[in-house]
Amino acid sequence: MATQGQFITCKAAVAWEANKPLVIEDVQVAPPQAGEVRVKILFTALCHTDAYTWSGKDPEGLFPCILGHEAAGIVESVGEGVTEVQPGDHVIPCYQAECRECKSCKSGKTNLCGKVRAATGVGIMMNDRKTRFSIKGKPIYHFMGTSTFSQYTVVHDVSVAKIDPTAPLEKVCLLGCGVPTGLGAVWNTAKVEAGSIVAIFGLGTIGLAVAEGAKAAGASRIIGIDIDRKKFDRAKDFGVTEFVNPKEHDEPIQQLLMDLTDGGVDYSFECIGNVSVMRAALECCHKGWGTSVIVGVAASGQEMSTRPFQLVTGRVWKGTAFGGFKSRSQVPLLVDKYLKKEIKIDEYITHKRTLAEMNEAFDLLHEGSCLRCVLDMHVVSSLDFI
Amino acid sequence: MATQGQFITCKAAVAWEANKPLVIEDVQVAPPQAGEVRVKILFTALCHTDAYTWSGKDPEGLFPCILGHEAAGIVESVGEGVTEVQPGDHVIPCYQAECRECKSCKSGKTNLCGKVRAATGVGIMMNDRKTRFSIKGKPIYHFMGTSTFSQYTVVHDVSVAKIDPTAPLEKVCLLGCGVPTGLGAVWNTAKVEAGSIVAIFGLGTIGLAVAEGAKAAGASRIIGIDIDRKKFDRAKDFGVTEFVNPKEHDEPIQQLLMDLTDGGVDYSFECIGNVSVMRAALECCHKGWGTSVIVGVAASGQEMSTRPFQLVTGRVWKGTAFGGFKSRSQVPLLVDKYLKKEIKIDEYITHKRTLAEMNEAFDLLHEGSCLRCVLDMHVVSSLDFI
Ligand SMILES: NC(=O)c1ccc[n+]([C@@H]2O[C@H](COP(=O)([O-])OP(=O)(O)OC[C@H]3O[C@@H](n4cnc5c(N)ncnc54)[C@H](O)[C@@H]3O)[C@@H](O)[C@H]2O)c1
Ligand SMILES: NC(=O)c1ccc[n+]([C@@H]2O[C@H](COP(=O)([O-])OP(=O)(O)OC[C@H]3O[C@@H](n4cnc5c(N)ncnc54)[C@H](O)[C@@H]3O)[C@@H](O)[C@H]2O)c1
Ligand SMILES: [Zn+2]
Ligand SMILES: [Zn+2]
Ligand SMILES: [Zn+2]
Ligand SMILES: [Zn+2]
Repeated sequence: MATQGQFITCKAAVAWEANKPLVIEDVQVAPPQAGEVRVKILFTALCHTDAYTWSGKDPEGLFPCILGHEAAGIVESVGEGVTEVQPGDHVIPCYQAECRECKSCKSGKTNLCGKVRAATGVGIMMNDRKTRFSIKGKPIYHFMGTSTFSQYTVVHDVSVAKIDPTAPLEKVCLLGCGVPTGLGAVWNTAKVEAGSIVAIFGLGTIGLAVAEGAKAAGASRIIGIDIDRKKFDRAKDFGVTEFVNPKEHDEPIQQLLMDLTDGGVDYSFECIGNVSVMRAALECCHKGWGTSVIVGVAASGQEMSTRPFQLVTGRVWKGTAFGGFKSRSQVPLLVDKYLKKEIKIDEYITHKRTLAEMNEAFDLLHEGSCLRCVLDMHVVSSLDFI
Repeated sequence: MATQGQFITCKAAVAWEANKPLVIEDVQVAPPQAGEVRVKILFTALCHTDAYTWSGKDPEGLFPCILGHEAAGIVESVGEGVTEVQPGDHVIPCYQAECRECKSCKSGKTNLCGKVRAATGVGIMMNDRKTRFSIKGKPIYHFMGTSTFSQYTVVHDVSVAKIDPTAPLEKVCLLGCGVPTGLGAVWNTAKVEAGSIVAIFGLGTIGLAVAEGAKAAGASRIIGIDIDRKKFDRAKDFGVTEFVNPKEHDEPIQQLLMDLTDGGVDYSFECIGNVSVMRAALECCHKGWGTSVIVGVAASGQEMSTRPFQLVTGRVWKGTAFGGFKSRSQVPLLVDKYLKKEIKIDEYITHKRTLAEMNEAFDLLHEGSCLRCVLDMHVVSSLDFI
């Protein structure tokens, strides 16, 4: 391939500073080093984690950087020693790596691989602890080990899932973050059983994917809680059977849910990132067995609290990252499930834009009607390399 | 039997007011009504829950009352409809009932039977919502549905476990609370696997029973944490392999434990009732799978807190009441285990007193060297009815 071993100059949306509009720049993408993979990103969606870091509220956020972590593309070239993918493979970059060798991977108890975390956490690649992005020689940081807001990106080989090449990349890009997070929260973290009563706080993409997962698991009642009544109609299609708007009640929401469910729900999911809601989600669980799973990401420094009595009387408090899915092993299986129509993806895509419209896409994220906005990374670009 | 159907006058330690010495009084114990059992208490131990309510810090505490919930005795008579025990049966009163009929019992997921809770929580019996204790006509409240600081007590039939009559009551009385709580926290709530690294905060009776349970489960390292260095020698006999005194270190204890264990422990147990320690116990757990179980009971109104990130990165926060044991079904099995020398009891009994020495026994509870003090309820009594 003509570009192999070369720098590639392509378009990327660069976050120069917190809270300032992203700028579409010509960025130089270095060739992949040992254990690295360079991927041509075809489609990327936006997620709240991008917006959170962009906002400057994330104390670990580094600028300038290239955000983005929910995407799909095609391998352009691979570095030394990379055996599991090759140029031309269709892939989904995975912010949660899976090395199959570290203590966490080998534990069989978690998807939180630790192999490249020390590098991806600080915006660099492990091999030489440098970035592969630069603009006129100035390094641009990576983000979450994925940086999918670029037409080309470089990721660690443990951070890329090879998928069925017949899968439509403009859809399956969503399997890079939001949809698996919700489904996995139900299937892997909570392990909801048939007949369970489930409460879902927040009916954005994550909450709807939780509803879909709970429906598939055979939940008997799926109660959706949101402060935005507009969310309710759409949520029905994802399996939500009842709705509660906390703003329409004087009682604390946990009390209301206990009353509605003869003592509390079997499983609750916090899909907002609000620490008071996290408490309510725990406290609406049934004594003795109710389990609450935190999926939402709270702003840095915020703390959640409750009376210990809530746990001593049998409630369980958990959380989930990427829904507990092992990325390289299980993302391809989720792609297969989509192809077999066992899970939804299309229904989460409410908007489509192009890389050039990145800032508009960020604005959409904060608009009630948007679930996921998918960006075509190449269509309006003036440069196109493959 | 001569006393059946009659009031019995016997000695009991009565808590007239919060925080005032208990008074040994002649108390009238009414005959058991439908679904009730009158038990001659032979031996009782003291537990911190008695001291907590006695202190007045428990807002649900009612006075005057007869405290006590860790005891063993013999059934004196039974009320109408009671079929599972009869006069002469050896029993352990159970503050955690087990009716086998309510939603909780039938769930198979919890030991927190709800059948008589509405009555025992407010110091009365369910049948007529009155007390069976009185002094010169003045009602004296029950406590935890057990009130074992009386030579005779009346309990609900769902709150009494029939045990092997060959078991020494002066020992197995401890199976009414502390020892099962610690063992069950490990076996039922945490389900510790062989090879696990375990941290135990607080090395009183509960912490030592956790250690014993963890050793039996095959834990590879059992780290005991206590601010009282005197606790360490004794703890070795219960399975603790390493000791940390937080007072001897400047680092936060959670950091210290992470360093000692390559990233954190697999299971931690809070056996103190201190909300800051509860946080430390969670935060010293390994990312991805570490599970923390709250066993200690915090003072009313206190709240525990942490950053949600702790849970999103895979730690699990749980609690336990009576170690998750189903009382009527499983306490008899624990008695059998003791008889087969599979669990310790004798080693927890550091002091012996009589009913007349109740106040001294309370003082001992706050003394570092005391684990459990067992009171002989009849030996120095001037009245003895059977
Ligand atoms: N744990 C993970 O691995 C992971 C992965 C992806 C996203 N997330 C997090 O999940 C959360 C949800 O993501 P999303 O994309 O669905 O977000 P979203 O903004 O689309 O949805 C949030 C929903 O919550 C509702 N809401 C806000 N405040 C509320 C309140 N007080 N009570 C009830 N409803 C309220 C909003 O109206 C909205 O419908 C975010 O915090 C995101 O960062 C976590
Ligand atoms: N959940 C249940 O069902 C249940 C049942 C019985 C008892 N409990 C509770 O369990 C707790 C322990 O009971 P116990 O009888 O073992 O009590 P205990 O007082 O004998 O033991 C507590 C130990 O903790 C140590 N300690 C105190 N503060 C500490 C700190 N900051 N850091 C480290 N160590 C500290 C003390 O030195 C002591 O050794 C109590 O809160 C009791 O109410 C709960
Ligand atoms: Zn995301
Ligand atoms: Zn790994
Ligand atoms: Zn107790
Ligand atoms: Zn019951």
